[in-house]
Amino acid sequence: MSIWFTEKQTQSFGITGKINQILENEKTEYQQLDMLETEQFGNMLLLDNMVMTTEKDEFVYHEMIAHVPLFTHPSPKKVLIVGGGDGGTVREVLKHSSVEKVTQVEIDNKVVEYSKKHLPHISSSFGDSRTELIIGDGFDHIIKSNNKYDVILVDSTEPVGPAAGLFTKGFYAGIAKALKEDGIFVAQTDNPWFKAELIRNAIRDTKEIFPIARLYTCNIPTYPSGMWTFTIGSKKYDPLDVDPNRISDINGQYYTPELHQASFVLPKFVQNLCK
Amino acid sequence: MSIWFTEKQTQSFGITGKINQILENEKTEYQQLDMLETEQFGNMLLLDNMVMTTEKDEFVYHEMIAHVPLFTHPSPKKVLIVGGGDGGTVREVLKHSSVEKVTQVEIDNKVVEYSKKHLPHISSSFGDSRTELIIGDGFDHIIKSNNKYDVILVDSTEPVGPAAGLFTKGFYAGIAKALKEDGIFVAQTDNPWFKAELIRNAIRDTKEIFPIARLYTCNIPTYPSGMWTFTIGSKKYDPLDVDPNRISDINGQYYTPELHQASFVLPKFVQNLCK
Repeated sequence: MSIWFTEKQTQSFGITGKINQILENEKTEYQQLDMLETEQFGNMLLLDNMVMTTEKDEFVYHEMIAHVPLFTHPSPKKVLIVGGGDGGTVREVLKHSSVEKVTQVEIDNKVVEYSKKHLPHISSSFGDSRTELIIGDGFDHIIKSNNKYDVILVDSTEPVGPAAGLFTKGFYAGIAKALKEDGIFVAQTDNPWFKAELIRNAIRDTKEIFPIARLYTCNIPTYPSGMWTFTIGSKKYDPLDVDPNRISDINGQYYTPELHQASFVLPKFVQNLCK
Repeated sequence: MSIWFTEKQTQSFGITGKINQILENEKTEYQQLDMLETEQFGNMLLLDNMVMTTEKDEFVYHEMIAHVPLFTHPSPKKVLIVGGGDGGTVREVLKHSSVEKVTQVEIDNKVVEYSKKHLPHISSSFGDSRTELIIGDGFDHIIKSNNKYDVILVDSTEPVGPAAGLFTKGFYAGIAKALKEDGIFVAQTDNPWFKAELIRNAIRDTKEIFPIARLYTCNIPTYPSGMWTFTIGSKKYDPLDVDPNRISDINGQYYTPELHQASFVLPKFVQNLCK
């Protein structure tokens, strides 16, 4: 007998994969949490039946959400991560020696707990002396923060369940207030094949609040369509103006100085979403 | 009741999608051919249970296999397509006004026949006065051709079934002989997540025969991993030296002059396959 999981990425399309065992299967206070041992991608975390991360391809998402904004800012010291309970984003942020403190606000303690247990290479940086983990609501934390952060990373789930409030114009305005006068934020903003309107709205709202607003992409095989987007909003520094020579080696598997620039070059149908 | 197809892209991972009906299901002389009407991607052609093309995302593959080499060559006149029986590649090639003749060698007449019937927007250029369609073996045609083509496009299936001979060093040597002294070829070379060795071999073999050998990528949601690669071999012209101002608008949805360059900027783990 062989057992396969299926994620319906839309009403009529999805991915399917062979699993060796179900490691966790729990309704937490906030969402459905599943941890699967898959044959192809190693251990896999799903929230509300959507793949969040896997051991084999997690490096793409985590390198790209962290290093693009952190190398855009000339000297990021205070960083906020909203969500990101698996720990991959904080792991990448800590590779930047300028960073003095990373505050992370994750709503669901169970995500942290099970990531520590089943995704040890992803969650390896929890407990680092430069990190502070707050179990709570990211939106509330942002509303209470003023002129505080150099970089804010919104490492959320899709806009259903607990993350629904994270894709609104009010949230982006709150982020702008929580950032310093030369601050930068980035948010994961799904894929252009199945969620064109989400991207159109995210980039439009970001443009209304930040002088610099740009979209960049990467390839994640376990995410819908394989193409993922991030929306970056910046008060001062343009990610396209970064001197490649200022980018140090982060010992990664995806991000490079050349890819930093190239990831902003969009296919025409994606460009059209940003007009 | 709802009916879903599944393509196993590896032994333990795949895609699945809802279908409205099975349009064709036939064992041809060369391969298993299925044409499905899918809910998400429109009509979909599968050969030997692998997705070849769909109405909704075909533009990516066809624009990227055609325009990158055809804009790299300053004046492509004679073009050969090996495979490509759905017609999408020839449709894109004919957008180049310099092209005088496109010879296409497709081994399986049934692919052409059913594409004309069920993929009319893809197969729209069969019968154009600049095209010659030969039903036959592409390898044989190349062996018999000397110093004949400006550009050769290998628009094949994966290296199983009738296309097995198309991923060998002997094939690349034959292509070099069939090309003129400043000729260019491109071949689809699968994805770096599940087929790393195939890419490593393709780029190594191409480097041994062509002075310029490069890999470029694009995003195709219905292909394994969502990231697809093409290997380009060129006797004289470097695809990275193309003047963007020489690239005219091809009225597409994916390819742009900026993306021409950016598609050659590889993630680090893909770069490593090319060393």
